[in-house]
Amino acid sequence: MNEQKATSAPIGIFDSGVGGLTVLKEVLKLLPFENIVYFGDVGRTPYGGRSKEIITQFTTQDVKFLQEQHVKYIICACNSASSVALEEVQKNFDIPMTGVIEPGAKAAVEKTKDGKIGIIGTNATINSNAYASLIHDIDPTLKVFSLACPLFVPLAEEGYIDKEATYLIAKDYLQTMKDVGVDTLVLGCTHYPILKEVIANVMGDDVTLIDSGEETAKASYNIIGESGLFNPKCNQNPTIAGELKYFVSDVPEKFSKVATRFMGKEVINITRVDISKY
Amino acid sequence: MNEQKATSAPIGIFDSGVGGLTVLKEVLKLLPFENIVYFGDVGRTPYGGRSKEIITQFTTQDVKFLQEQHVKYIICACNSASSVALEEVQKNFDIPMTGVIEPGAKAAVEKTKDGKIGIIGTNATINSNAYASLIHDIDPTLKVFSLACPLFVPLAEEGYIDKEATYLIAKDYLQTMKDVGVDTLVLGCTHYPILKEVIANVMGDDVTLIDSGEETAKASYNIIGESGLFNPKCNQNPTIAGELKYFVSDVPEKFSKVATRFMGKEVINITRVDISKY
Repeated sequence: MNEQKATSAPIGIFDSGVGGLTVLKEVLKLLPFENIVYFGDVGRTPYGGRSKEIITQFTTQDVKFLQEQHVKYIICACNSASSVALEEVQKNFDIPMTGVIEPGAKAAVEKTKDGKIGIIGTNATINSNAYASLIHDIDPTLKVFSLACPLFVPLAEEGYIDKEATYLIAKDYLQTMKDVGVDTLVLGCTHYPILKEVIANVMGDDVTLIDSGEETAKASYNIIGESGLFNPKCNQNPTIAGELKYFVSDVPEKFSKVATRFMGKEVINITRVDISKY
Repeated sequence: MNEQKATSAPIGIFDSGVGGLTVLKEVLKLLPFENIVYFGDVGRTPYGGRSKEIITQFTTQDVKFLQEQHVKYIICACNSASSVALEEVQKNFDIPMTGVIEPGAKAAVEKTKDGKIGIIGTNATINSNAYASLIHDIDPTLKVFSLACPLFVPLAEEGYIDKEATYLIAKDYLQTMKDVGVDTLVLGCTHYPILKEVIANVMGDDVTLIDSGEETAKASYNIIGESGLFNPKCNQNPTIAGELKYFVSDVPEKFSKVATRFMGKEVINITRVDISKY
């Protein structure tokens, strides 16, 4: 592949479904001049309750699809896939990739003052211990408390946000985090930023929330820049927006509806893919 | 196939995951002398938010797997699959099958006094209008009110039952059913019997709840009997219990845990199947 082709190629972003759109939103803020292909595996969502083996199989298929789109760089915008599958899957492909764990873990280490970090995520993410293990690689003296909050994903997807029930569930889940006194809490699932307000409300003003999607967008900006992979359009005219294509693994109607709510503008032109063929 | 082989063959029961265990439990009460193969598609659960096309594809694969187990009769214990896929899938197989919709619909027609029936289920089930359409085939004068309650499945799966938040969500969802004055409410999702108490609590004593799983077990008993397909063991010694085999499409650990809670006894010896190969 010649350099010109590589740099104008799209960035691939994939997720188990709609959650990764919170990452896409952050990427669009920092890299508006890039072409982007987003794949949401809505036909098999959610990944968070499944085993390492199944998530690895699904992640491999997602990456194969993006490879076929000739992407120059892949963002795995799913915490569950990033935690349990990405390291292994990455070995089989010649495309630079980043997951959402490392950027979130690094940001938490930078922010904590008292050295007590909380991690919330799906069962797959929490059971993998990926965040804690990366944080301890950076600083073994930090205390990390990890907790699965499986009801947060359906609550976010249903738009069940400004409700007493959601507040009560968040209070139930997060009480231990308050009791142990974390000063930094990583939202280790791309759906969780949708519930940021209620989580902040329960945790209180003294706790810093880390949005791993936001951190991943920043990290991707740096990696793409350092690798000399910025879209040449960027230098020519930074105000020209890149092309954004959506692909999903089920009929696009529901994705379109939820995505329109997540992105704050109408999401149409969504193409369906039979992901089982990859 | 000779008759002896057919009658001693197992009954196949399948569901998108663990929900169908509420149907299995009822089947075991009425048909304890039958051999049973249960398949739970936990690797692709839940079906209820997916499209007709994807559910039809998954249902076909589930039935193909059971066919390979030489079952004599199939119970589709998933309301979503029964609503949108079973009629079409059934045409391609030479095995008698029953879904959970017709038995539930019939029971509701029998129970209602004021002619106002409520149906609650997943998005797939409610959007299909399958219950309402069957009820109107029997009696076009009945009034049917249908409502999707998508948060009930994750709440049931998480065992989030005896909680204020679950009561508040149920109250939110079911208020319209109370306002229109249904006297009969069909639990049109196999997970919902797990939340029966809280649903009954919200609806009040005057509303009859129909458990479509229970009705399906009764209907299956009748159909199997009328077709002369009872396991011959039944006549020889009705106290001899049949063999029960569990198959799932992800690693069995989580299924085992949830199934043990659902069935009220330890569920082990669960075999994993790669359902994507069917």
